[in-house]
Amino acid sequence: MTKTFVFDAYGTLFDVQSIGSATEEAFPGYGHYITQIWRMKQLEYSWLTTLMGRNEDFWTITLDALEYTLKTLGLKLPPQRLETLAATFNELSDYEDAETCLTQLATHRLAILSNGTKNMLTKLVGNSALNNHLHHILSVEESKVFKPDPRAYQLIIDRLAATREEVIFVSSNGFDIAGAKSFGFTVVRVERVSSEHLTRDLVNAAAVNFGPTEIFKAMRTQEEQLQLKPDFTIPNLASLPKLFSEPSVPIEGPEALDQSGN
Amino acid sequence: MTKTFVFDAYGTLFDVQSIGSATEEAFPGYGHYITQIWRMKQLEYSWLTTLMGRNEDFWTITLDALEYTLKTLGLKLPPQRLETLAATFNELSDYEDAETCLTQLATHRLAILSNGTKNMLTKLVGNSALNNHLHHILSVEESKVFKPDPRAYQLIIDRLAATREEVIFVSSNGFDIAGAKSFGFTVVRVERVSSEHLTRDLVNAAAVNFGPTEIFKAMRTQEEQLQLKPDFTIPNLASLPKLFSEPSVPIEGPEALDQSGN
Repeated sequence: MTKTFVFDAYGTLFDVQSIGSATEEAFPGYGHYITQIWRMKQLEYSWLTTLMGRNEDFWTITLDALEYTLKTLGLKLPPQRLETLAATFNELSDYEDAETCLTQLATHRLAILSNGTKNMLTKLVGNSALNNHLHHILSVEESKVFKPDPRAYQLIIDRLAATREEVIFVSSNGFDIAGAKSFGFTVVRVERVSSEHLTRDLVNAAAVNFGPTEIFKAMRTQEEQLQLKPDFTIPNLASLPKLFSEPSVPIEGPEALDQSGN
Repeated sequence: MTKTFVFDAYGTLFDVQSIGSATEEAFPGYGHYITQIWRMKQLEYSWLTTLMGRNEDFWTITLDALEYTLKTLGLKLPPQRLETLAATFNELSDYEDAETCLTQLATHRLAILSNGTKNMLTKLVGNSALNNHLHHILSVEESKVFKPDPRAYQLIIDRLAATREEVIFVSSNGFDIAGAKSFGFTVVRVERVSSEHLTRDLVNAAAVNFGPTEIFKAMRTQEEQLQLKPDFTIPNLASLPKLFSEPSVPIEGPEALDQSGN
């Protein structure tokens, strides 16, 4: 049976940490500070502007967050180079397991719902190997709010003519997992950094140098304590097709799927 | 002329960093990791729950953020001790300039608007020297949203029967400064960490150990790039009364005050 899989883009299909080489090239020695503060601030600004009811687009927010980051670190770029550096968000690497995952799910309906503007997403997907594998690319731009505001997830219902029950939403981002779950989707969390590994890394780092990368991982890769648990947690995208393959014997099918009537 | 001053509590009148001794006592060697991640996550959860339209109170959020923090670091506390540690948010030190500031402004109407629950704020203020200096303590609890949602600031209008034009809102928190400005108040930013000092500290730290305290300062003490600038920036609360003292010669009065008709 055909299902509707909707993927988050930044951090789920595409590796946000791949901006690291561009930030390091622009400011040698400061790359990982810029990368982490920029990404954390970018999301923070998406939440704050939505809360204040101000309709900013994600490109403006990305530039503003970069400007904040550089200013905080006492660094400067002329406007043109600021835009060039921000444009690395349109050239992120896709995770190595993303294309295989989408290929194996090809008989299903495959979409992206992302905070990025249409323009950013067109470039991002167009620059990648995932271009031919996605049937729909939805930007929250038309909803005028960012995730996890429910109006952002409503776009999936409206544009794909899907019911909440049939959507399988896939994300690595805690706020997005909580938002999609709160909206009523079946949610798969891609846990790229397991809590065991992270804790070990953090405890080791605490003894040596607990830097911005550790803080980022601590803040943004773990399952949130928001009473909105994902239905499934998988270590990477390669595990997704298996999880939703048609069971040859019914009793082997994943329980939550059976419950939701798929 | 009597003015209405409304202060943010956590980080403005009260020093959130004063939870540091309790977190360090509970987990020696981990105090500053817990302090920073906990506070950053606490605010993150206040924004996310508001965006999702879920009505959580700040005490629950404070506990959830602490639980997240400990779990991430591989640490554990039984529920009772978790509550005891979280209760340090009700015993924060007031900044040493806070009482003098309020004393000097005593002829004006003085209030708090805080994310904290009524219960948390009653304890926090009751435990402090500021207790007798504040005329109103407003919790966003009744608005069922957190700052910077405009419905939180609306409480000032509704409960104090004040107009937007007459309110002087005082905060150190970037999201709060932006929110109050977006709502239409005259906003004073208390810049406890100047950008020059911060940049110098961060550059020095980058060469040695750029830890969670540096990330916290980089993320949460600087003026935001949100096109919502404060009307005034002062280095500490001691500078506030001077800024709003009646000018003996009209031309010496602060310009923005004259413009707003006070």
